[in-house]
Amino acid sequence: MESMGALLAILRDGQARTKADLAQLTGLARSTITQRLDALLSDRWIVPHEETITSGGRPATAFSFNQAARVVLTADLGATHDRLAVTDLATTILAERTADVRIDRGPEATLGWLVTSFTELLAEAGYTLGDVCGVGVGLPGPVAHASGRPVSPPIMPGWDGFAVPEWLNERLGVPVLVDNDVNIMALGEHWAAHPQTDHLIFVKIGTGIGCGIISDRRLHRGARGAAGDIGHIQVAGGEDVLCRCGNTGCLEAIAGGAALAAQLEGAVTSRDVVDLVRAGDMRAIQLVRQAGRQIGTVLASMVNFFNPATVVIGGALAESGEHVLAGVREVVYSRSLPLATEHLRIQASELGDRAGMTGAAVMVVEHVLASVD
Amino acid sequence: MESMGALLAILRDGQARTKADLAQLTGLARSTITQRLDALLSDRWIVPHEETITSGGRPATAFSFNQAARVVLTADLGATHDRLAVTDLATTILAERTADVRIDRGPEATLGWLVTSFTELLAEAGYTLGDVCGVGVGLPGPVAHASGRPVSPPIMPGWDGFAVPEWLNERLGVPVLVDNDVNIMALGEHWAAHPQTDHLIFVKIGTGIGCGIISDRRLHRGARGAAGDIGHIQVAGGEDVLCRCGNTGCLEAIAGGAALAAQLEGAVTSRDVVDLVRAGDMRAIQLVRQAGRQIGTVLASMVNFFNPATVVIGGALAESGEHVLAGVREVVYSRSLPLATEHLRIQASELGDRAGMTGAAVMVVEHVLASVD
Repeated sequence: MESMGALLAILRDGQARTKADLAQLTGLARSTITQRLDALLSDRWIVPHEETITSGGRPATAFSFNQAARVVLTADLGATHDRLAVTDLATTILAERTADVRIDRGPEATLGWLVTSFTELLAEAGYTLGDVCGVGVGLPGPVAHASGRPVSPPIMPGWDGFAVPEWLNERLGVPVLVDNDVNIMALGEHWAAHPQTDHLIFVKIGTGIGCGIISDRRLHRGARGAAGDIGHIQVAGGEDVLCRCGNTGCLEAIAGGAALAAQLEGAVTSRDVVDLVRAGDMRAIQLVRQAGRQIGTVLASMVNFFNPATVVIGGALAESGEHVLAGVREVVYSRSLPLATEHLRIQASELGDRAGMTGAAVMVVEHVLASVD
Repeated sequence: MESMGALLAILRDGQARTKADLAQLTGLARSTITQRLDALLSDRWIVPHEETITSGGRPATAFSFNQAARVVLTADLGATHDRLAVTDLATTILAERTADVRIDRGPEATLGWLVTSFTELLAEAGYTLGDVCGVGVGLPGPVAHASGRPVSPPIMPGWDGFAVPEWLNERLGVPVLVDNDVNIMALGEHWAAHPQTDHLIFVKIGTGIGCGIISDRRLHRGARGAAGDIGHIQVAGGEDVLCRCGNTGCLEAIAGGAALAAQLEGAVTSRDVVDLVRAGDMRAIQLVRQAGRQIGTVLASMVNFFNPATVVIGGALAESGEHVLAGVREVVYSRSLPLATEHLRIQASELGDRAGMTGAAVMVVEHVLASVD
C-alpha cells in the first residue's frame, strides 16, 4: 500500500504529527489515514503521544516514528579488515566490533564468521534475531545491486557471482542488501553529515580508489551498478604503469595506497603509508601530496561534469591529515570551472571508518520502510 | 493542490482512465478525484470519453490528457543560427522557423526579434497568445536555472546576468523557462528517443563541446547549474594549446569545431568542416576522427564515473557521418571498464538539429503540468 510508505516517509524525521497534520500533508482521506496509522501502530513502526498536541484547543493524539521498533545488522567488509554493528532505525550504533579478517578466504568462511559475530553482537546489545528488520553488507568490489552478487571483484577470489543475500538470508531469515563499500560510505556520509546536500561525491582513497555518487539526494549506481569507478581512469604521464585491471596509467595504479606503499621502504599497506606520514617521513608526505594532485586531476574533470556541492575524501589515506586534501584542492580549484567551484566544498570524511557501517544501515532502513505494507 | 499534478502525471501518457482506475492508482478518495477531475476538465487539461470503457459491465466515463489544450513557444538560440517552433503539449511541432541571427547582437535585439517571430509563427499555426502556456528558450552558454539568467557566457557579449525570463514575460505574459542549449538537447533526445533509459549523456560537438546529463530520467543540472561542462576538461598532450577560458589543453580547444576549422584551409565554422568531410577531404576526415578519439578519452572517464546506459552524440560535427562516432567508440570501448561498457550504446542523435526545440518544449510542459492547481 503506497500510502503507508508515504506516511512513514513523513514521520521518519522524528517530529510528532496528528491525523489532521497528516491529512493536510498527504491529501489522503481521514479514514485512510486512520486505517494506515492503526496498521503502523500494531507493527510498532510508530508510537502515539496522547494529548500532547492540541489543535483548535482540543487535545489530539500525535504520532511519531519509533526508531527503536527494529534493529539493523550492518557490516563493512574490507580486504583485510571488517567492521560490524547493530544499529537502531536512526542508524545509531548500539554495539560494534572490528576484526582483521581476510576477504580472500572466500565467501563461505567470511560470511559464516559474519553470522556468528552478528549473533554475538545482537546478544551483547540485548536483542534477538526477531528484532532484526534487515542486514546491510558492503563489499570491496563491484556488486550487481539488484541481485546483491559480486561481479568479477578483483581482490575477492571465489566471490564472483556468489549469492550473498540468499546465503545470509537462509541463516538469518531477514532481508539482506549488499552493495560495494564506496557506495555505502557515500550513503552514510550523506545521511549523517550532509543531509541537506543534493549532489555529493565521496572519494575513498585506500588500497584502491573509487567514489560513491549522491545525485539529487539519492545514490547514483548507474545503468549497471558500475558508477563511481574512477580508479581506472587514465592519468597523463602514467602510460608505462601497468594496473591490475590490464590497462596502463590508471589512477589507482599511480595514486592508490598500494602504489604509494610500493615506493616506500618498510610500507606494505595504506595504513603503513599513513603511519609514515604521521611520523613525519618527508618522502611519504611528498608522495601523498603528489597522489592528492593526481586524484585532483581526475576529480577536476568530475567536478566539471557533475557539478557537486561537496566532495568528501575518505578511506585510509584520508587519515594522513591535510596532505592529500591539500593536493586535491590545489588541482581542483585551478582546473575546474569558476561556476562549478564557486561554492564547492572539498573536505575530509566526518564519519571516518564508520561511514560504511552507517551507510549499510541507511540502505537497509530505506529499503525496509519503503516496503512496509 | 499536489494531487491534481499527480492525476495529470498519470494521465499524461495518453491512456484514458476511469475514476475507479485513478482511485486505485493514487489511493485518493473518490470524492477528491471527482473534484480534481472537474477542475482539470473545466481548464481543458483533460477530455472525457463518454461510455467508452465499461467496468463491471456498466458504462463509465474515461478521461485522457488533452495534448491540444495549450501550445508552447520554443526556441533554440545558437551563436549564429536560431530555431523556433510552436508545439502542442506532446511536443509535436505545429509550426517552425529557422533563421541566421547573431547572438552577439545582444539580448534586446535578439529577444525583440524572437517576440516578433513567435507572434508570426503563432498566427501561422492558427493560435493566439491566449493559447500559450509557456515559453522555453535554450541559450549557447551557462544559465543559472532558477533565475534563467546567463552567467558569464563566453560567446554572448551583453547577456551576462540579463533577466531573459522577465523580459520575455513582460511582452508575452506567460511563464518563461531558460536553460543552456545542451541541457535542453539532452531533455529532448531523452523524451523523444530514449524515454525508457534511466541514465544518458548527450554530447554536443559544435563550435564548442558540452554535455547534458539525464540521471534517473531527469536532467541533472548540478549544484550551480554548471553540470556537463566537459569542454574544459584537460586532455593529455594539449598543454601548449590555449583555450578561450584561459586554461590550456581544454578538450574544446583541441577537438571542438572551431579548433578543427582553424586547421583546414577554407573552413571557418563547424559546418564548413562537415561540408569538407562530406566532400571526401582526407585531411578533414582525419581531423574529425582524431577529434572523436580525443572526445572519447574524456567520455571514457565519464562512462567509468557515471555508468550511463546510452551516450548520444549530437551537434553540428555529429552530422559528419560515422567518423566522429567511430573515434569516440574506439577509445571508450578500450578505456572504460567492462562492466560499464557491457550494454553501453554510443549513437548519433535521432532528433538532430530539432533536439533543442523539442527539449525546450519538454521543459515547459513539465513545469506547467507540475504547477497546475
